[in-house]
Amino acid sequence: MKNIKLLIEYDGTNYSGWQKQINNNVSTIQGTIEQCLSKVTGEKVEVIGCSRTDAGVHAKGFVANFITESRIPSDKFKYAINRVLPEDIVIIDSKEENINFHARYCCIGKRYIYKILNRQWKSPILRNYAYHFKDKLDVESMNKAAQYLIGKHDFTSFKSSGSSVRSSVRTIMDAKVYAVEDLVIFIISGDGFLYNMVRIIVGTLIEVGIGKKKPEDIVSILEAKDRQKAGASAPARGLYLDEVFY
Amino acid sequence: MKNIKLLIEYDGTNYSGWQKQINNNVSTIQGTIEQCLSKVTGEKVEVIGCSRTDAGVHAKGFVANFITESRIPSDKFKYAINRVLPEDIVIIDSKEENINFHARYCCIGKRYIYKILNRQWKSPILRNYAYHFKDKLDVESMNKAAQYLIGKHDFTSFKSSGSSVRSSVRTIMDAKVYAVEDLVIFIISGDGFLYNMVRIIVGTLIEVGIGKKKPEDIVSILEAKDRQKAGASAPARGLYLDEVFY
Repeated sequence: MKNIKLLIEYDGTNYSGWQKQINNNVSTIQGTIEQCLSKVTGEKVEVIGCSRTDAGVHAKGFVANFITESRIPSDKFKYAINRVLPEDIVIIDSKEENINFHARYCCIGKRYIYKILNRQWKSPILRNYAYHFKDKLDVESMNKAAQYLIGKHDFTSFKSSGSSVRSSVRTIMDAKVYAVEDLVIFIISGDGFLYNMVRIIVGTLIEVGIGKKKPEDIVSILEAKDRQKAGASAPARGLYLDEVFY
Repeated sequence: MKNIKLLIEYDGTNYSGWQKQINNNVSTIQGTIEQCLSKVTGEKVEVIGCSRTDAGVHAKGFVANFITESRIPSDKFKYAINRVLPEDIVIIDSKEENINFHARYCCIGKRYIYKILNRQWKSPILRNYAYHFKDKLDVESMNKAAQYLIGKHDFTSFKSSGSSVRSSVRTIMDAKVYAVEDLVIFIISGDGFLYNMVRIIVGTLIEVGIGKKKPEDIVSILEAKDRQKAGASAPARGLYLDEVFY
């Protein structure tokens, strides 16, 4: 019996998110990988993911693990699974971990990237990979605002109402907004993220970018612990789970 | 009667190239735009494209024109057409041109971009937007090789055999290869390009990048005027028609 850790990249466009659903007609990343693993190992495998990404969200470095009796060498699993996976999911790496390793519980931090296409016309090429926002964004103000997120804060204002976690306190290690040609890119790393937290932060930073909010308003939004004070949740298609830390 | 010039961006993934085909079951960019223009104007419209991109090739600044009796203001055409176009084709701009303007005959040059994803594992996110090449490419050598293309040359060696143009002499104004993270990007501008010329050049530069050819071999390949001397044609999905000059 061994515990295999997978590093996964996927295009979330055609999936209803990571998590398997009771309705089998719904295509999910977890469900797809589990089906492929069953074919490869002949076992009924349960894959544990590091987080539950929403429909349309992408991942460049998603981590998952599963227990198997299979004799396939750990580092060969990636080839075996990739052969049966659809082309929008790729196993970048597979290796054996300690039997106690758990992709979700052992995770100590994550980095997300959000891409905004900031120009007049929408892009057919990036239509599923960036959020198109027409009005000119003040990237410098957005970056200034992002700095107020760094540190240990109660992020209740940046949490979707559906969420029911015990604590809303999270520590943000780094946050940055910068422009590359007509893309505005937001990078954030933290010890954990609440439901929709990154997308609500982006929605709020966009309000800063168009002058509707000031960078320092982030301080009072955090203090308010009120979802109504923050901006709207930005669309899923601009979001990438970039790296997971253990 | 007026002549409308369109600036078009498209994701070529789901199309059999620009040019309309006799078989109506085949989806083409030209056919799709003509159908949409018929809906918008009520006329049977013929759209003239600046070039015939192959299946899977993308465009960021394709130019086309059409003659119409429609009363829609020239600069409003983009909104009217975009409303009925599928999301993988976008009209960036529309404006009235001199009645003699012809998107193909008036074109004096073009710029193409080719993207190679140069890393071990393939990318599900870029699967339709870059050519995945595993072996490490020597970008400096590739760029050195590209410099030999600049100037007026007979490009017979870089032309697909199917082609039957009068002259194979073209002038390359600029050519450059550089890396951005794990992408190797090739940019080339010239007064014209033969059938598959950019893709054959990329295939040849890749051979330079893996040490199979030397940068200065480009000189003898050009002189040979023999398709067999150049490399294979690189896949369509990495190619973008970037800008067209008039």
